[in-house]
Amino acid sequence: MLNIVLHEPEIPANTGNIGRTCVAANTRLHLIEPLGFRLNEKNLKRAGMDYWDKLDVTTYIDYDDFIRRNPNAKIYMATTKATKAYTDVEYEPDCYIMFGKESAGIPEEILVKHKDDCIRIPMVPDIRSLNLGNSVAIVLYEALRQNAFAGMDLEGHLHRLEW
Amino acid sequence: MLNIVLHEPEIPANTGNIGRTCVAANTRLHLIEPLGFRLNEKNLKRAGMDYWDKLDVTTYIDYDDFIRRNPNAKIYMATTKATKAYTDVEYEPDCYIMFGKESAGIPEEILVKHKDDCIRIPMVPDIRSLNLGNSVAIVLYEALRQNAFAGMDLEGHLHRLEW
Repeated sequence: MLNIVLHEPEIPANTGNIGRTCVAANTRLHLIEPLGFRLNEKNLKRAGMDYWDKLDVTTYIDYDDFIRRNPNAKIYMATTKATKAYTDVEYEPDCYIMFGKESAGIPEEILVKHKDDCIRIPMVPDIRSLNLGNSVAIVLYEALRQNAFAGMDLEGHLHRLEW
Repeated sequence: MLNIVLHEPEIPANTGNIGRTCVAANTRLHLIEPLGFRLNEKNLKRAGMDYWDKLDVTTYIDYDDFIRRNPNAKIYMATTKATKAYTDVEYEPDCYIMFGKESAGIPEEILVKHKDDCIRIPMVPDIRSLNLGNSVAIVLYEALRQNAFAGMDLEGHLHRLEW
């Protein structure tokens, strides 16, 4: 099972959106605190996140706590500062893909310890990069593609057309 | 240049988000009316869509108008009703990828005319499928990957770390 890690996410709608993607993609979500919002029932309900109870989600008090509780994790770090494209690595079926906060990305003191595992999504240089939820979807689905969408529905939905 | 087509999109935040992805991915956006919102300056500004003026976007009064004005378009249709996965086709560098409205997808009368070009994103069957913006990002970046991210920044951003 693949793993998405959000390091100190700030915007609740993005984390909600990423949670929805993880449910759809049979993927675990890891949230490293501090978060820019509270994950309580009232807020989740207000955001229409009725799928949250289907999500395999773990929170950590900080990055060290995450590392301690996932000691053998192979972690890829998504950052605009990387030279390697996200399509140039081979994702293990149980690897972790980590994304930083919306305003600043993953801190450089973490990145420098993972030089060879830093990945970047090619894009046109612009004032606005890709939205965090889209960035997660793009890299996660490349990792799923490389792993032949293992554990997912490959035959199509029940309601598909009878052609 | 790749092309994203939204058929009667309903939710302005999704179209805004997709516009941002298209700018980042050097991709043309085509919007087929009716839209569930107005594309006026006031609404765009309110939605924080300061990147909209960088977007190559065309609107059409209906699907026939779109076909008439793009007569040679090779169109892939993204739908949960397809059997083929989106990773199982070869995207031409100037192809079109079309997505339906959030609540209903592309109408079946259009899909049946494009059987062989219908594509689906594998996902766990669930009450909530992937968000429209994420679906566009996933398929678009697969098409870009297949085309070696032509025309995009492959060398990384100027502000990348000097490692």
